[in-house]
Amino acid sequence: MVTLTSIIGKRQKRVDSRGKVTGSTRFITDISVENMLHAAPVYSSEPFGKLVEIDAGLIDQDPDFIAFYTAKDIPGVNQVGVILEDQPLLADEIVRYHGDSVGILVAKSHESALRLAAQVMVNIEIFDPVLSIDQSRNATENFLHESNLACQHQVKRGDPESKFATATHIIEARFETPFQEHYYLEPQGCIAQPDGQGGIIVIGSLQCPFYVQKAISKALGLPYSKIKVEQAPTGGAFGGKEDIPSEVCARAALAAFKLNRPVKMIYSRTDDVQLTSKRHPFQMHYKVAVSDEGKLLAADIHLEENAGAYATLSSVVSYRSAMQAMGPYVIPNISVESKSYYTNLPPTGAFRGFGSPQAAFGHERMMDTIAAELSMDPVELRLKNILKVDTETLTGQRLNSSVGAEETLLTATEAACWNNKIPSSDPRWKIGYGVSLIHYGNCLGAAGWFMDGSGVKIKVHRDGSISVAFGLVEMGQGALTAVTQMTAEALGVEPERISVLATDTEQVPDSGPSVASRNVVMTGNAIRDAARKLLPTLKEAAAELMDCDLNEVKIEHGWVHNTRNAGALRFKELTNYLYLSNRPMDVLGWWHVPQLEYDPVSGVGEAYFTYSYATHIAKVAVDTLTGLVKVEKIWASHDIGRAINPAGLEAQIEGGTAQGIGWALTENFKLKLGKVLTNNLTTYLLPTALDVGEIQSILVEDPEPEGPWGAKGIGEPAIIPTAGAIANAISNAIGKPVNSIPIIPERILELLGN
Amino acid sequence: MVTLTSIIGKRQKRVDSRGKVTGSTRFITDISVENMLHAAPVYSSEPFGKLVEIDAGLIDQDPDFIAFYTAKDIPGVNQVGVILEDQPLLADEIVRYHGDSVGILVAKSHESALRLAAQVMVNIEIFDPVLSIDQSRNATENFLHESNLACQHQVKRGDPESKFATATHIIEARFETPFQEHYYLEPQGCIAQPDGQGGIIVIGSLQCPFYVQKAISKALGLPYSKIKVEQAPTGGAFGGKEDIPSEVCARAALAAFKLNRPVKMIYSRTDDVQLTSKRHPFQMHYKVAVSDEGKLLAADIHLEENAGAYATLSSVVSYRSAMQAMGPYVIPNISVESKSYYTNLPPTGAFRGFGSPQAAFGHERMMDTIAAELSMDPVELRLKNILKVDTETLTGQRLNSSVGAEETLLTATEAACWNNKIPSSDPRWKIGYGVSLIHYGNCLGAAGWFMDGSGVKIKVHRDGSISVAFGLVEMGQGALTAVTQMTAEALGVEPERISVLATDTEQVPDSGPSVASRNVVMTGNAIRDAARKLLPTLKEAAAELMDCDLNEVKIEHGWVHNTRNAGALRFKELTNYLYLSNRPMDVLGWWHVPQLEYDPVSGVGEAYFTYSYATHIAKVAVDTLTGLVKVEKIWASHDIGRAINPAGLEAQIEGGTAQGIGWALTENFKLKLGKVLTNNLTTYLLPTALDVGEIQSILVEDPEPEGPWGAKGIGEPAIIPTAGAIANAISNAIGKPVNSIPIIPERILELLGN
Repeated sequence: MVTLTSIIGKRQKRVDSRGKVTGSTRFITDISVENMLHAAPVYSSEPFGKLVEIDAGLIDQDPDFIAFYTAKDIPGVNQVGVILEDQPLLADEIVRYHGDSVGILVAKSHESALRLAAQVMVNIEIFDPVLSIDQSRNATENFLHESNLACQHQVKRGDPESKFATATHIIEARFETPFQEHYYLEPQGCIAQPDGQGGIIVIGSLQCPFYVQKAISKALGLPYSKIKVEQAPTGGAFGGKEDIPSEVCARAALAAFKLNRPVKMIYSRTDDVQLTSKRHPFQMHYKVAVSDEGKLLAADIHLEENAGAYATLSSVVSYRSAMQAMGPYVIPNISVESKSYYTNLPPTGAFRGFGSPQAAFGHERMMDTIAAELSMDPVELRLKNILKVDTETLTGQRLNSSVGAEETLLTATEAACWNNKIPSSDPRWKIGYGVSLIHYGNCLGAAGWFMDGSGVKIKVHRDGSISVAFGLVEMGQGALTAVTQMTAEALGVEPERISVLATDTEQVPDSGPSVASRNVVMTGNAIRDAARKLLPTLKEAAAELMDCDLNEVKIEHGWVHNTRNAGALRFKELTNYLYLSNRPMDVLGWWHVPQLEYDPVSGVGEAYFTYSYATHIAKVAVDTLTGLVKVEKIWASHDIGRAINPAGLEAQIEGGTAQGIGWALTENFKLKLGKVLTNNLTTYLLPTALDVGEIQSILVEDPEPEGPWGAKGIGEPAIIPTAGAIANAISNAIGKPVNSIPIIPERILELLGN
Repeated sequence: MVTLTSIIGKRQKRVDSRGKVTGSTRFITDISVENMLHAAPVYSSEPFGKLVEIDAGLIDQDPDFIAFYTAKDIPGVNQVGVILEDQPLLADEIVRYHGDSVGILVAKSHESALRLAAQVMVNIEIFDPVLSIDQSRNATENFLHESNLACQHQVKRGDPESKFATATHIIEARFETPFQEHYYLEPQGCIAQPDGQGGIIVIGSLQCPFYVQKAISKALGLPYSKIKVEQAPTGGAFGGKEDIPSEVCARAALAAFKLNRPVKMIYSRTDDVQLTSKRHPFQMHYKVAVSDEGKLLAADIHLEENAGAYATLSSVVSYRSAMQAMGPYVIPNISVESKSYYTNLPPTGAFRGFGSPQAAFGHERMMDTIAAELSMDPVELRLKNILKVDTETLTGQRLNSSVGAEETLLTATEAACWNNKIPSSDPRWKIGYGVSLIHYGNCLGAAGWFMDGSGVKIKVHRDGSISVAFGLVEMGQGALTAVTQMTAEALGVEPERISVLATDTEQVPDSGPSVASRNVVMTGNAIRDAARKLLPTLKEAAAELMDCDLNEVKIEHGWVHNTRNAGALRFKELTNYLYLSNRPMDVLGWWHVPQLEYDPVSGVGEAYFTYSYATHIAKVAVDTLTGLVKVEKIWASHDIGRAINPAGLEAQIEGGTAQGIGWALTENFKLKLGKVLTNNLTTYLLPTALDVGEIQSILVEDPEPEGPWGAKGIGEPAIIPTAGAIANAISNAIGKPVNSIPIIPERILELLGN
């Protein structure tokens, strides 16, 4: 067993809170550099067409005009697609969505860049746009790309057909989920500057500095070593700053490179909403065979995703939604097809959960639909099928440890008094309870294994202070705080000694993207690797200093003990001795996900190395008069393996749940011919504190042997079950199935027949 | 034997030349940051006294005035002495030289900072100043510090007294060498800025980023982890930016910390000359016993150094001058005392050679004096006594390898046609030849062993480009180029793949100071250590890719060969595979100097781990009419173990020789009551191209087993023998001993009796 001091599991105040609440943290908009210019994107206002001409003739006499660049100015390769090579950095022939960038306008100020960009004439020969999944799937010509199918993944396991042929209960249902806008509070932005040696330095609001480095290398034809990317403090991301900053930064870098001057590009909110990626809308068809006792026998599941104009991260979304399509249940016979279709809408891509919230809405509404069909309690149905140690997931992966699904379900139902629900006392308000259960594959999974490694560099200073560089990033999720705690724990020192550096591409190896709830697992393990290398040096020096054996040295809470004679040194005395004895005090740590046995053709095998599990129970009150749904309380029980920072975990659970509530109830993303109508906070309604209700977090600790101190990821599990729980609760309240979201008041009234 | 490809030993163009010749390199004066203020030092104009009052009352209403800070504003410890704790960051009680800083004036512009700083009234109760070594040594009260002796080192070996009692020839002489101003073209300067998280970031023109980090930590009471120091491209240093930037940067950091705004401080040339350290003036007394055959029997040597007001690096100067006091000769009985005395003059400290040029002037003039006494050819005398393998240095260190002294002497004399010297054809011009021979202990030596380790971080990018961070710095000496070559050689790739990063304190472990000709030896060995760690990973991956055994993989010139079947891959195919197979591609390297057996009391033992050797022969023409000395040619033969970059070595030899010519002939540093009179280039005459004459570099390669590819240091050996060679040549030309420098025309005329 791992020995724990009081650091792991302690409620730790965020190490970056002071700067963020006092305003001293400088986000990219707050940063200026000398001699800086400003850029704005010039883009298509048509959803689909042939680019005929770009005319900047009206503006090049403007005193604020500096330059205008189009695809022909790109010295490298005009390609920025992160997985598929389907997306030009600047469209040069076909434009595929309202927002498709065709040029970069550089001017003296941010305001004049926006003003002049709007005056560039982009002449387009208009094609009929493809605006829905159905239209895309059914098209026989005028494809957006080589075909309209962006990508697909599948699971084919057992023999579902024969089970369907004999099953007594076969239940079918369709579900739909909509776009969701990330609505990070800080729009996309960066500053690109020439380094004076032929290279480029970029600082920006971003999740994946190594993606940006690669994108700039490709666009400018520069080696990686000539490109440094540093993350600025980032005001929210949620996946929206995974690959999109590659476009933003590569465009700014192009201008900086051409002009040999620093160029800042900050998207306006309107441009940000119009140009950048969203959550994929899903259409889902579930067909499930169950026994009389409620055992899941077989499933046939079709997931269809609206990928928008470019694939971006669609492949990850289609992979993950397929791998988790039937949730954390035992189902030996299954067929899943998950397909992403191009449409002439803004691209959809990475968004907290990567298709999991959509699939979870599907499987959890399906479970309640089955329970209703069998007149069985929804919790009872789930308990009959739930994944446990020594069962297999829907992809046939045998689970050996850390399967807390049942415990999350039991703790949540107990906390919510599921068996003693309180009925409504007011006939106008209908009360409903809904449960939703999920599993979430940690990190990138079999399809992304090749890039699922991460690094840290720990530097012990002579005075006993410690700097840590890591390859993932803080983007609001509390990474700096968790890294601080884990480093302190690993080295036996107080968290106050630790400073975590801003992430940049020079400090650490390419550590892959900050996505998929990877940080604690990847960075924590890399920290342990670094500590494994550093501790022998520390102990050897301590043994010299204290004249004892290596195994008599114990380093704890910033003290170095000689366990034989109760002698002790301060940590800084040890580090000073390390320095004076000429020992190197920097160390690199690395960890990669264990290799996974997985067959991409059948989709059978180890899809992920481990899973987080969660149960959300929602209690809602539905106003039958106005159709308004009030979320009174959500009990959110999460198996996170081991809590590193309970305060941070609760913040993640609360944030994710709130985002799930918005997606389920208030966020109603509207487009007209590809133009986003809900492009501000007046029309796109994020849930406020009043909409969120009470959230009770329950932490279930079922340690994952491969996780650092047993920990698993929480970033995404936090949002995934929420919409399903709410829809189930509303269905329970009003007695009608609610199979699509958002559940706006008009929908409720319609369902109620009012 | 080391296998060499064509990279080591190839004449490599400087990798930083383009920026430096086109002006695109941005030095610290070229850099501005947003919201930046400007600081200037306020200092004493008296050489010695009690600080009575500092009155800024005249200026605090000035619209450009921002703030004025004195010692009482320092939150940490008011102490910046690098070895001895004798120097306040800001004087608060006693001022000890004209230039002793008492405050920092912050204003809106550089110009107003200088203007307002000059208006601060510094009232001092004047003491009698100590202006010479003799005055300092003989003082019985009113010491500058606890005593007037700053530090001392000694060598006591064998029994010189009994040798003197019996020797047939006992020769005595006194020698004197003057101040030398570094006169780096770029004055001291930095920008200090708050990092928004309670820490400080400093970028500056400096040699030793880790010294600056330590100084700021002490002054501000911040942990090291909260202080990042980055070196800006540095326009010359020569030791003058070893410890002085600690003062400059800590003062700017204090202002930045107090104001929570960036503060730039660039010294004016006048302030720079007045405030910062110089080369120690030496007074030397040599007494040497020799046999009739010219064998050195015993020596009694007294070196006295003018340390100025604070010790700074005096201890290193006194150590090194003692360890090398009798040069590269066998002398079994010796007593050396080397003492540094405080005076009320600008501090003297680190300067290319650290006391070696002074001691070399002493021992080489002494050798010629002995030769004259014995009527022996100076080369013959030296050959009789020269260090070889299996002899012992004056400190009793047995030399096992890489002792190229004799080869430098033989190659130089052959090149100069020493035995067929060309006499003068014009009676007005007297021609003379002088030889000078030196050894130079590489790196910090026994007294500095505890900090004689250095590190690198090598990052291999996925695209096969490579970034290298190192802990020492480029300051004009060609470090970036040598690091590029050594990394390319160590990894088997082309130099074009390599980018060397600007040095900062976060990237690599504390690597000690960039002094003592350390870079090639320390960084080169650290690169080899890193390569030793990285190559097995590269080869393992290559063997997987090419389906061969590890020992069949050969990486050379950017190609990866399978030696069994002549298969080959490009290096970037290998690095891409490394990435995809989840192998970490960053590696740290470290090297420290082997431990040294040395007794600090007797000064006997291994003073340094190895030595560079050099012979300079000067041919001068002395104008008997005007007293002008023209250096016609210098043959400079250097044993550098192994040439990494012959072009860089020659540049170092030419630069060092030119600086030695200036010290010997043209640079006539003058003070009046501690005020520097020669504070600009009109009055302090640096040698121009016309003054330098022809320099012929000869590279002797006698590989040092502990050096990287056999290499030893050249930075300092380049200057050390020059003044002795010139003085010997002038003595030879005019037939009168020239025992002090600078040898200005007036001195020549005086010696000639004109």
